[in-house]
Amino acid sequence: METVERIVLAMAELMRRQGYAATGINQLVEVSGAPTGSIYHHFKGGKPAVAAAALRQTGAVYIELLPLLLDPYDDLATGVEAAFAQAAEDMETTGWANLCPVGTVTGEIADTVPELREVAAEVIAHWVDEGTRYFVGRGLSDTDARSAIYALVSALEGAFILARGQRSREPLHAAGKATAAYFATMSARIRTQVPEPGSSAGR
Amino acid sequence: METVERIVLAMAELMRRQGYAATGINQLVEVSGAPTGSIYHHFKGGKPAVAAAALRQTGAVYIELLPLLLDPYDDLATGVEAAFAQAAEDMETTGWANLCPVGTVTGEIADTVPELREVAAEVIAHWVDEGTRYFVGRGLSDTDARSAIYALVSALEGAFILARGQRSREPLHAAGKATAAYFATMSARIRTQVPEPGSSAGR
Repeated sequence: METVERIVLAMAELMRRQGYAATGINQLVEVSGAPTGSIYHHFKGGKPAVAAAALRQTGAVYIELLPLLLDPYDDLATGVEAAFAQAAEDMETTGWANLCPVGTVTGEIADTVPELREVAAEVIAHWVDEGTRYFVGRGLSDTDARSAIYALVSALEGAFILARGQRSREPLHAAGKATAAYFATMSARIRTQVPEPGSSAGR
Repeated sequence: METVERIVLAMAELMRRQGYAATGINQLVEVSGAPTGSIYHHFKGGKPAVAAAALRQTGAVYIELLPLLLDPYDDLATGVEAAFAQAAEDMETTGWANLCPVGTVTGEIADTVPELREVAAEVIAHWVDEGTRYFVGRGLSDTDARSAIYALVSALEGAFILARGQRSREPLHAAGKATAAYFATMSARIRTQVPEPGSSAGR
């Protein structure tokens, strides 16, 4: 594995477990196996620069899960509920691991590390753009699609925190049921609406 | 203000802004105005003990907002959407302040500070118990009420993070709309169901 990749993966893993503030360069050296000089050679900005790269890479991987999880389901609401249930199972089998360091790190650093807050905003905007495009492809209107991805990510990030706090699948199951109910109301609109000429509905 | 109260409030304020790991006893001395000896006198366990008290107190205050925000609305779904809109406005007017340090701190410390993770679990369980009781009082079944409070808190905590990251009201508005749509499906069940004899529906 390339040195840069090892450094970024180690930072993502450390932030997932203990957040941004608790993670120091010494620990990053230890976990990545890359010497301090190498870290600063590749990341002139030091720790915040490595963290930025880790958030960008983690964020890019996460949004690719959306089609993988939902494509198998003709009914979006059913797919959404199954995706939350899968997340609950993944958390329990990994000892309630933090499935999304982007969310927890964003909450931690939003007021204190402006350059990382901007990277988090960029990652979230990418999720929203990709998610909107995906749900438009599944037949939702632009407005519904954008609300849908925001609602899905909000419910998921919040339920991750509650599930980690309580070491319980219940928050994810409840959030999944609620988000699925919302998707069902939007799907009902697809079935009853007359598509506008030239609209992007259907795929 | 009592010394203990000043220490706890200062800790809550510091954790809201910068999380748990970044907050040191020296800073707590500075912000609370209480000397180090006084902090350890009142909190033998030091920083994690002060943080535990701050999470418990903040958590207790938050759940009291639920009836205050929803009682004015005959329709729960309308009330839920309004509550998310109010949270969005409060965040923007406070410069995207962290409205709930419990959520961000739980995400940060769940893997690293076991005694604080247990306190977070206790605070969340209290929210769920109180919220379930409240929604049963508003006519939901026990099962629906428990799902409802989990879904509401998940959506709110997740949307807080996205809103802070993006400095935008949009995540909270979308999460509010989605959560309201879920509540509307439960309210529809109230209207169509025949109450069981001795059930606690209605208030």
